[in-house]
Amino acid sequence: MTGLAALAACIATPSTSSGKPALESLRIDAARLQRSLEELSVFGRPSGGTFADGVSRIAYSDADVAGRRYVMDLMRAAGLEPSIDAAGNLHGLRKGRDPSLKPIVFGSHIDSVPDGGNFDGDLGSLAAIEVMHTLQDAGIRTRHPLEVSIWSNEEGGTLGSRGQIGTVEAADLDRMFAGVSMRDGLRRIGGDPDHLEGARRPPGSVQAYLELHIEQGGVLDKAGIPIGVVEGLVSIDEYEVEIRGFANHAGTTPMPERRNALLAAAKLIEAVQELVTSMPGRQVGTVGQLVVSPNAPNVVPGLVRHSIEFRDLSEDTLAHLGAAIRERAAQVARDTHTEITIRPTEHLPPALASPVIQRQIEASAGALGFKTMHLPSGAGHDAQIMARLAPMGMIFVPSVAGVSHSPHELTRWPDCANGANVLLQTILRIDRS
Amino acid sequence: MTGLAALAACIATPSTSSGKPALESLRIDAARLQRSLEELSVFGRPSGGTFADGVSRIAYSDADVAGRRYVMDLMRAAGLEPSIDAAGNLHGLRKGRDPSLKPIVFGSHIDSVPDGGNFDGDLGSLAAIEVMHTLQDAGIRTRHPLEVSIWSNEEGGTLGSRGQIGTVEAADLDRMFAGVSMRDGLRRIGGDPDHLEGARRPPGSVQAYLELHIEQGGVLDKAGIPIGVVEGLVSIDEYEVEIRGFANHAGTTPMPERRNALLAAAKLIEAVQELVTSMPGRQVGTVGQLVVSPNAPNVVPGLVRHSIEFRDLSEDTLAHLGAAIRERAAQVARDTHTEITIRPTEHLPPALASPVIQRQIEASAGALGFKTMHLPSGAGHDAQIMARLAPMGMIFVPSVAGVSHSPHELTRWPDCANGANVLLQTILRIDRS
Repeated sequence: MTGLAALAACIATPSTSSGKPALESLRIDAARLQRSLEELSVFGRPSGGTFADGVSRIAYSDADVAGRRYVMDLMRAAGLEPSIDAAGNLHGLRKGRDPSLKPIVFGSHIDSVPDGGNFDGDLGSLAAIEVMHTLQDAGIRTRHPLEVSIWSNEEGGTLGSRGQIGTVEAADLDRMFAGVSMRDGLRRIGGDPDHLEGARRPPGSVQAYLELHIEQGGVLDKAGIPIGVVEGLVSIDEYEVEIRGFANHAGTTPMPERRNALLAAAKLIEAVQELVTSMPGRQVGTVGQLVVSPNAPNVVPGLVRHSIEFRDLSEDTLAHLGAAIRERAAQVARDTHTEITIRPTEHLPPALASPVIQRQIEASAGALGFKTMHLPSGAGHDAQIMARLAPMGMIFVPSVAGVSHSPHELTRWPDCANGANVLLQTILRIDRS
Repeated sequence: MTGLAALAACIATPSTSSGKPALESLRIDAARLQRSLEELSVFGRPSGGTFADGVSRIAYSDADVAGRRYVMDLMRAAGLEPSIDAAGNLHGLRKGRDPSLKPIVFGSHIDSVPDGGNFDGDLGSLAAIEVMHTLQDAGIRTRHPLEVSIWSNEEGGTLGSRGQIGTVEAADLDRMFAGVSMRDGLRRIGGDPDHLEGARRPPGSVQAYLELHIEQGGVLDKAGIPIGVVEGLVSIDEYEVEIRGFANHAGTTPMPERRNALLAAAKLIEAVQELVTSMPGRQVGTVGQLVVSPNAPNVVPGLVRHSIEFRDLSEDTLAHLGAAIRERAAQVARDTHTEITIRPTEHLPPALASPVIQRQIEASAGALGFKTMHLPSGAGHDAQIMARLAPMGMIFVPSVAGVSHSPHELTRWPDCANGANVLLQTILRIDRS
C-alpha cells in the first residue's frame, strides 16, 4: 500500500477502538466502480454511440482483447499482479494471513453477446476488482487468500470456467465462434489451447466461489428488492420435436382430411404453457424455435420442427414435465393425424448454491440494511461451473424491467454499489467463519 | 380425313339409321390419350426416371418448349393448325358449320410446378386435343367452331389466360420467374410481350369455356365417384398477421411476465381451425406460413409473422370469417399481452360455373353411366380467368388420395378416359343446344 492510499483508507474507513478499521463498516468506492464500468464500456461500443447504446464485446474480438487489457490495468491499480491461465481466464491473487487456507475466489466475465448491455458480467467482474481495491486502500489483510477471476468466453459456452474443471474437449476447441475456432480465439487472448490442463483446479482446492451478477429477469425490480440471494442455477431439459403431417394444397384439401403439422404444433405450444403454469412453483417452459415446411401460405404444413425447453431447480419437476408433454403429444398426434417424435437433446443438472453461503449473503445484506429475496437463477453463469469445485454463492441485483442481452439492459448505479458492498461483506464474513 | 381414319371411325362409331354416327355413342380413344400423356411426360422427367417419377416442366424452361412442340405435333395429327398468340398460348381451331356462331373453347395447361405430377393440366390439355382427334376421325363437323387452347404459364399465375382478358401489366412482365423475367420467358415460347393486346378477346366472344382437370383434392376418390361437376372456383381472402410480443431470456423471464408472440400465434392457429370447422359448409382456412423471431430455443419469441388464408365459394362466408378472426385476435392479444395486426393482402372473387353448363356436364356424365358429385374447386385454374369472358364449366376426375403438385400425383387411366368422354359429350351437347 502506498502512503497516499493508506491515508485515503484512514479517511474513508472508521476505525475501531483498537485502531483497526471496523470491517462491518467498510464500503466499496461507488464512484470508482461506476467510472470503471463506464471506461470498460468503450471497448466494443457501437461507433458514435454512448454508454446507453450497449456493447458488442464478443469473446476473442479486438474489443475483448482491449477490454481485458483495461481490466488487467484495473487489477494492477488494485494491487494485484494479473495472470492469464491456459483457458484464457484472468486471475489476480491477494495473499492471506494464513498460508494453509484455500482461496476465496470471486469474479465474473467481461465478454458480451452481440448488441449486449454494459452490466451482464461487467458488473460482477469490476465489482470483484473494486473489492480488492477497497481492501488494499483500507490496508486489510484477510485470513484466506482472495482471488479475482475474470472468466473467458462466458457467452460462448462458459469456455473459460469449464477450463478450470477440465471439461473442455478437442471438439469444443474446433468449434467456430464468431468467425474463429475456439482454439485460435484462445490464442488471441493469451490462452494456451495445447496445454489446457494447466488451467485445471482440483475439486476442494477453493474455499468458496462468489459471483455478483445482474438478475437478467424482472423479479427483483418488480418487487422493489435490491439484493437477490440465489438458491441455485436451474436444471435445463431441452427437447427437439418433429411433427410429421402431410403437405397438401390449402384449397383442395377439406378440413377433415388434413394432417396439419402446424396445427399440431400449436396444440403442443399451448400444452407446454398449460402444463408449466398449472402447477405451483417457478418452473418455466418455452417453445422458442419453430420451423415450418414447406412454409407457403397456400400449402397445409407437412412438417414442423420445434424446440421445447423446461427449467427448474428441481430435476424431479423437469422429469414430470417431460413425461407430461409426451403424454399430451401422443393425444395431439391422434387428434391431428400426425406423427410426433420428441427427442431429448440436452440435460443440464442444477447447480445449487451452498446454504451456508446463502445465509452469509443474507446476513451481510441485512447488516447493510438491504431487503433480500431468495430466487433461482434461470440463466446459466460461470458460477454453475465453479459449483463443481467449491461451495458457491451468487448475489443478484435488479435488472430494470428484466431486460438483458440488449443495449437497453440497465442496473441502476446505487444497485450496482449495493451489490458490490454485499459481495465485499460476504467475502469478509466467509473469511471470518 | 384420310380414308383409313374414316374406316376406323366407321368401325369405332355405330351409325344411326340415317348413316351419320350416333353422337351419343361417340367415344375418345383411351389408348391414344394414355399414349400421348406418357409421351408428353418425357419432357421434364427427372434424369433416369420413369412416368411415376413425375415432371418438372416449369414454364419457359427447355422442357416446356419441347413439350409445347410435342403438343403442336399432336394438334397437327388431330387435323388442327396450331398458332401461338402474343401471350404464349397455343390454339387449334376447328371450323364449325355455322360461321355466325361463336367458338366453344376448351383446354388447360402443360406447364408444371417443380417436382410435379403428370396429370395436373396435362390431362385437360391432351384430352382436349383427343376430343378434336376423335371428331376428325369420325368425320363430325359441329355447328360451332371448336377451339383447343393450351394456356401458357398457369403455375406461375395463369399468365397466359390472363393475357386473353387483358389483365397482364408491365409489372407482371418484369417479374422474375424461374430465373428469367416473364417478358423474356414469353419470348422463349414464341409469345410477343410487346404486343400483348394481340392476345385479347372481348367478353362475349366465346360461346362457352370448358376445362377437364384432376381434382387435386381427395373428395371424389374418397367417395368413389368418377366425375365431379365443379360449382365454381372459390373466392380467396389472404391476410398477413404480425404479432409483437417481447423477446426475452427463456430462463430469467417468469411465465406471468412473458409477452410470448408464438404462444399468441398458437392460439390464433387454433382459432382459425375452430372458426372454419364450427360452421356448416365446405370453407377452408389455413395458416401455412409462419416465421418466428429471434427463433432460438432459449429466447421467448418476440415477433411472429404468419399468413391466414380462407377459401369458399361464398364471399359472405369469407367476410364473416375475416371479422371473426379479428375478434379472436383482439382477445388473444389481451390474454398474451401482445400486439396483433391483421392486414388483408389479397382478395380473389369467386368464379362461378354456369348452372346451364353444370347441368349439361351432369347430363352427359349420366348418359355415359357415371355418378357425379357437385363440388367447388379450392384450387385456382385458367377456367377462373376464362369465366370473365364466357359461361364456364369444369369437369373434375379423381386424384388418388388427393395428392397433387407431387410426383405421387395419380389419376387412374380409366378415370382419365371417362373425364375425356364427358368433355367430348358436353361439347357436343352445348353445340346442339
